[in-house]
Amino acid sequence: MIQCKKILVLYVGGTIGMQKNQNGVYIPIPNTFLKKVKNSEMHDKLLCEKYGLPMDENELILQTIGEHTILYKIEEYSPLLDSSNMSTKEWIRIAQDIKKNYKLFDGFVVLHGTDTLAYTASALSFMLDNLQKSVIITGSQIPIFETRSDAKDNFLSSLIFASCYDIPEVCVFFANKLLRGNRTTKISSNLLDAFDSPNYHHLGETGIEVHVYEHYIRKNTRKGNIAVHTNINPNVGTLSFFPTITSTQLESFLKPPVDGVVLQSYGAGNIPSNKPELLRVLKEAVQRGVLIVNISQCARGTVSIAYETAQALEEIGIISGSDMTVEAALTKLSYILGSAGTYEDKVKLLKSDLRGELTNSNIK
Amino acid sequence: MIQCKKILVLYVGGTIGMQKNQNGVYIPIPNTFLKKVKNSEMHDKLLCEKYGLPMDENELILQTIGEHTILYKIEEYSPLLDSSNMSTKEWIRIAQDIKKNYKLFDGFVVLHGTDTLAYTASALSFMLDNLQKSVIITGSQIPIFETRSDAKDNFLSSLIFASCYDIPEVCVFFANKLLRGNRTTKISSNLLDAFDSPNYHHLGETGIEVHVYEHYIRKNTRKGNIAVHTNINPNVGTLSFFPTITSTQLESFLKPPVDGVVLQSYGAGNIPSNKPELLRVLKEAVQRGVLIVNISQCARGTVSIAYETAQALEEIGIISGSDMTVEAALTKLSYILGSAGTYEDKVKLLKSDLRGELTNSNIK
Amino acid sequence: MIQCKKILVLYVGGTIGMQKNQNGVYIPIPNTFLKKVKNSEMHDKLLCEKYGLPMDENELILQTIGEHTILYKIEEYSPLLDSSNMSTKEWIRIAQDIKKNYKLFDGFVVLHGTDTLAYTASALSFMLDNLQKSVIITGSQIPIFETRSDAKDNFLSSLIFASCYDIPEVCVFFANKLLRGNRTTKISSNLLDAFDSPNYHHLGETGIEVHVYEHYIRKNTRKGNIAVHTNINPNVGTLSFFPTITSTQLESFLKPPVDGVVLQSYGAGNIPSNKPELLRVLKEAVQRGVLIVNISQCARGTVSIAYETAQALEEIGIISGSDMTVEAALTKLSYILGSAGTYEDKVKLLKSDLRGELTNSNIK
Amino acid sequence: MIQCKKILVLYVGGTIGMQKNQNGVYIPIPNTFLKKVKNSEMHDKLLCEKYGLPMDENELILQTIGEHTILYKIEEYSPLLDSSNMSTKEWIRIAQDIKKNYKLFDGFVVLHGTDTLAYTASALSFMLDNLQKSVIITGSQIPIFETRSDAKDNFLSSLIFASCYDIPEVCVFFANKLLRGNRTTKISSNLLDAFDSPNYHHLGETGIEVHVYEHYIRKNTRKGNIAVHTNINPNVGTLSFFPTITSTQLESFLKPPVDGVVLQSYGAGNIPSNKPELLRVLKEAVQRGVLIVNISQCARGTVSIAYETAQALEEIGIISGSDMTVEAALTKLSYILGSAGTYEDKVKLLKSDLRGELTNSNIK
Repeated sequence: MIQCKKILVLYVGGTIGMQKNQNGVYIPIPNTFLKKVKNSEMHDKLLCEKYGLPMDENELILQTIGEHTILYKIEEYSPLLDSSNMSTKEWIRIAQDIKKNYKLFDGFVVLHGTDTLAYTASALSFMLDNLQKSVIITGSQIPIFETRSDAKDNFLSSLIFASCYDIPEVCVFFANKLLRGNRTTKISSNLLDAFDSPNYHHLGETGIEVHVYEHYIRKNTRKGNIAVHTNINPNVGTLSFFPTITSTQLESFLKPPVDGVVLQSYGAGNIPSNKPELLRVLKEAVQRGVLIVNISQCARGTVSIAYETAQALEEIGIISGSDMTVEAALTKLSYILGSAGTYEDKVKLLKSDLRGELTNSNIK
Repeated sequence: MIQCKKILVLYVGGTIGMQKNQNGVYIPIPNTFLKKVKNSEMHDKLLCEKYGLPMDENELILQTIGEHTILYKIEEYSPLLDSSNMSTKEWIRIAQDIKKNYKLFDGFVVLHGTDTLAYTASALSFMLDNLQKSVIITGSQIPIFETRSDAKDNFLSSLIFASCYDIPEVCVFFANKLLRGNRTTKISSNLLDAFDSPNYHHLGETGIEVHVYEHYIRKNTRKGNIAVHTNINPNVGTLSFFPTITSTQLESFLKPPVDGVVLQSYGAGNIPSNKPELLRVLKEAVQRGVLIVNISQCARGTVSIAYETAQALEEIGIISGSDMTVEAALTKLSYILGSAGTYEDKVKLLKSDLRGELTNSNIK
Repeated sequence: MIQCKKILVLYVGGTIGMQKNQNGVYIPIPNTFLKKVKNSEMHDKLLCEKYGLPMDENELILQTIGEHTILYKIEEYSPLLDSSNMSTKEWIRIAQDIKKNYKLFDGFVVLHGTDTLAYTASALSFMLDNLQKSVIITGSQIPIFETRSDAKDNFLSSLIFASCYDIPEVCVFFANKLLRGNRTTKISSNLLDAFDSPNYHHLGETGIEVHVYEHYIRKNTRKGNIAVHTNINPNVGTLSFFPTITSTQLESFLKPPVDGVVLQSYGAGNIPSNKPELLRVLKEAVQRGVLIVNISQCARGTVSIAYETAQALEEIGIISGSDMTVEAALTKLSYILGSAGTYEDKVKLLKSDLRGELTNSNIK
Repeated sequence: MIQCKKILVLYVGGTIGMQKNQNGVYIPIPNTFLKKVKNSEMHDKLLCEKYGLPMDENELILQTIGEHTILYKIEEYSPLLDSSNMSTKEWIRIAQDIKKNYKLFDGFVVLHGTDTLAYTASALSFMLDNLQKSVIITGSQIPIFETRSDAKDNFLSSLIFASCYDIPEVCVFFANKLLRGNRTTKISSNLLDAFDSPNYHHLGETGIEVHVYEHYIRKNTRKGNIAVHTNINPNVGTLSFFPTITSTQLESFLKPPVDGVVLQSYGAGNIPSNKPELLRVLKEAVQRGVLIVNISQCARGTVSIAYETAQALEEIGIISGSDMTVEAALTKLSYILGSAGTYEDKVKLLKSDLRGELTNSNIK
């Protein structure tokens, strides 16, 4: 029995749809991506005719894969958005587009530039509450218009994961790997294998077959409708410690209107202990109500509260961010600061595992 | 023919020599490390007697390895320095200690905390000019006083690399790998395999045998003495872009007395193009004489000048940092800002490959 | 509350306890290993006195680790066994030694040469039925008598896993990784990281902390006593296909007294289709009652019955070995051929997952 | 300046060109591959018209890449050859096809099934003497006719490496990696990343850019023409040791007409020392003139002559194969046995590095 699945594709922007201009610089060219996909093996014209589909111009159909036929509709953003310009406003727009179409489609694919893809994936994971369908974010390192390109592989596999499996998560698909969105980080600026989730097992993999690692999927057992939180706070930032940091720099970074800061400390959560003014500045910010969350600047690993400096940070109200990525920590802050509740409520939420973004570890 | 090599070990501090206090917190205990090493297989008392060595109390000798007998002297810093407190002053002290002892020893091992080890390694690589001997920096994730520990493995292999090979570089040894110091970064807060050099091949490896990858060693063909540059500038910092960054934050970060900044941009060197005020702030800082170097926030890869935003940055005087680590970029800035020369001289030095810290690539 | 655990260590032989003779060749020297361990940090004399332990000469005690104090007794085989000489007789001896001491100890560590360690681990996993305690097999690439050595790390971590966790499996520990024994294969002859389990997730890892990946442990929910099967059949062999193979070679390999053969075919289970005599020879052997199991010669992956040649093999009675290692397949054959039951029973057992050695996959 | 390069593509067979038949089984369908490629982005019809090319039906042209326009001609074998059936006869045919067309083309791509691809690549590397152009062997894990497929990526990148660089070697390209042919082995039956060269650095890599690791390319500095050796000996085989091996099995495997055998021993080159009859059987075979080469059954590492058993093997005339793959060792034997020269000449050739297939190491 062939099942038919409908997927909405939001083509937000990014390298995947760019072409070189006369100066040899990649720029987005509106209204060309759809045509390119339509004239590729990603659109099955015979199947279209067979089903006698009176399809919209931006609706496409994939060759039947296993037991699934995938119908997908590409909505192109206008103007196309550059990855480095994506911020809270754009996250809200995507979240709202998913909400608007949530009941009309079985899953969602977002085509996005790679530079801030992990930020957008993390943000959406928090903004989309009680998600029961897949939202797969992907893109490519080389445009679809180049002969050698990773665009179709990434796009096609994202459609398959969004259609044929039960993965009620915001995910990133890239280079044969399906990753949890809020665990993902961009690890390479030049390889096709550009993303990884250093502190969490992959959710799936494509080889000759398509595999889903069921054990690692966050199963949503709640009932009810999706809730989309668009009241997110843009006054958040992230600062990584370095040996020559001064309390003046730290202080000016924490100044109003900043409401939340991700601190990337050394190793398992350490900051200098011989500069008391740094601690004083942090303490004052906490007392003003700034939410400060402490994560490691190491790609892999967790902030530990077993160390002396980490304990000192806890005492003045710095919140341990466990093994969150910087992208997850920043967008989680933005999300929590936009929600109702007391300061204590927010601290509690920050420490909690809301969408699988951190490990609540009791490892001895 | 047995060759006898003399190595100076600077025990600066760090986890390698810590012990748990009554509260279960790791702290450095002075004057215990030497004794622990002396009573281990890392000191061969029989060999000592055989050679009739009237050794100083802090001189040790290793069982002969291949054709080499390694005599080493451990100098413990007092007080022991915490990794998170290491900054320019401490780098200068280590550099001076190496200079002072340069002719008396065949090589140097620095025992250091892991948190800022990559910063110190990078700084020393620039400060030690015309180095003709090995300086190997190591440490451990678990103290030497624990039964299960990586301390002796790392220490012993560092002594071997510093003694038995011709590697005139500042290196990091950790977890069976020898890495170029200014290519190294800490990648894990909890694994023993805690360091890597993502943009440069390893220099060596320990397995059943010890291997040196000769092709990747930077051979020093210059004559003359070592020059130790201790006039380094502490007014440097590093800031990583994030989607919610504001021009106010950027501006206050670039304020005097800051003389140099490492900007960690997205992907291959991109920053937001829809916030002209960010560019304006950067341009003003450059015009004030601030050296700003652009590197990628991705662990692997290089800033490319082929992209539009990167070109815009070049035009306002932001310097491309190629594939440098953040640790190398920060300490290189500190070193160059402390040297004589015009602004243009400094820009040129920043772009150049001084100690193997960046790839001058002509990849098409 | 400190718990005291008792571990039996069977020192079977191997590199871990060797020393160089006058010709520079490594040989085992009896009655030296125990003394070496006893005079290292792996034996806590103070703790010994504190507990007033009237210990046997070959009983040692480890510094308390977390909540566990580990007492262990080293039984050295005489003569010490060379890894390349280990076969069915030696597997039986080890299994019997474990059986004999099963109730007296909380866990078992086997010190073994690395060359055939994966064979012994696989064999023991089948021979020890209804195992409820840990049997950890380890060794080292460099003898414990060398200054630079992986011996103590591997030995110590094996003792910890055997004592402090509930892992009722035959495991291999090597180079910071705990692996399921019958999934393990030796992957390097010269690196310290010499073993891997290419088709199964690691069971544990040692870093700053010790981690057990609970989800992957095979929990034993059966009641009753351990059953040790020592009636194993030595008339088994393994043959890997190669392009110039002849039916004569295959035929002579399958001749009596051979009762079972592991065939390592190409890729997902393919053999030449243009040499009908190969199929004929295989068919005749099956008809004589030889059990032939088909696995892939690729390090990673599984034999698939979806392909044409694989189907042809199934039809003549060749048994699909799924994703078993060659070590698991050979020893499983040996174990099953030694058990009672009809030919059909044995075929069914071979295809079944008996000790976690293969994946019963329904991947589409 | 655009350079035009001409590449000959030998489409030998394999998964890359297969389609499912009515029973869901993959089979090769003749005369369909060319058409599929021609109607894809791998053939630029506009460029074709622009150049007014009176092309043959099987000549195609790629969109200009950098400074190169690639013209390629696809010659399909009839019948298409199944990977598991490739042996000496087929290697000879491919070698002769390359020889025949050597002066007419700038480079060669061979499309081959994956199962024995590493054997064919190794064989060709020995048969093509004094090669001055690239021969790139590739294939795919999923047919080009499937929507999700690695076929075009592998094919296209192979064409680029064969055209735009100076790599006078027989190489394998697969999954973004260029490998030396006679160092390559198939490592996975189900992943797209199916090949690796465990004992030799990759020759190139494709990411956003295409990289060639120049240092690792074997530069051919000899003058003169290519020499193609097609007199290769099919009477060669490979046998891997296992704990239950008997001297009878070994003896029958070494029987005439066998002229050469690859022995895959344990670890660094060990075989059982407690079964003197095994050594006797080997010695007798050597005395009969059988060439026996010893390699490790570990995926990574080398046979060492420093161990006792290895020395025993040397003494009876077993030849150390260093770090050769089984594929390289078997095809090298076949090539050398087919050449003129005394037994001693052949032994010397076997030990020598002829095409970069082994490491002549003096590592201490």
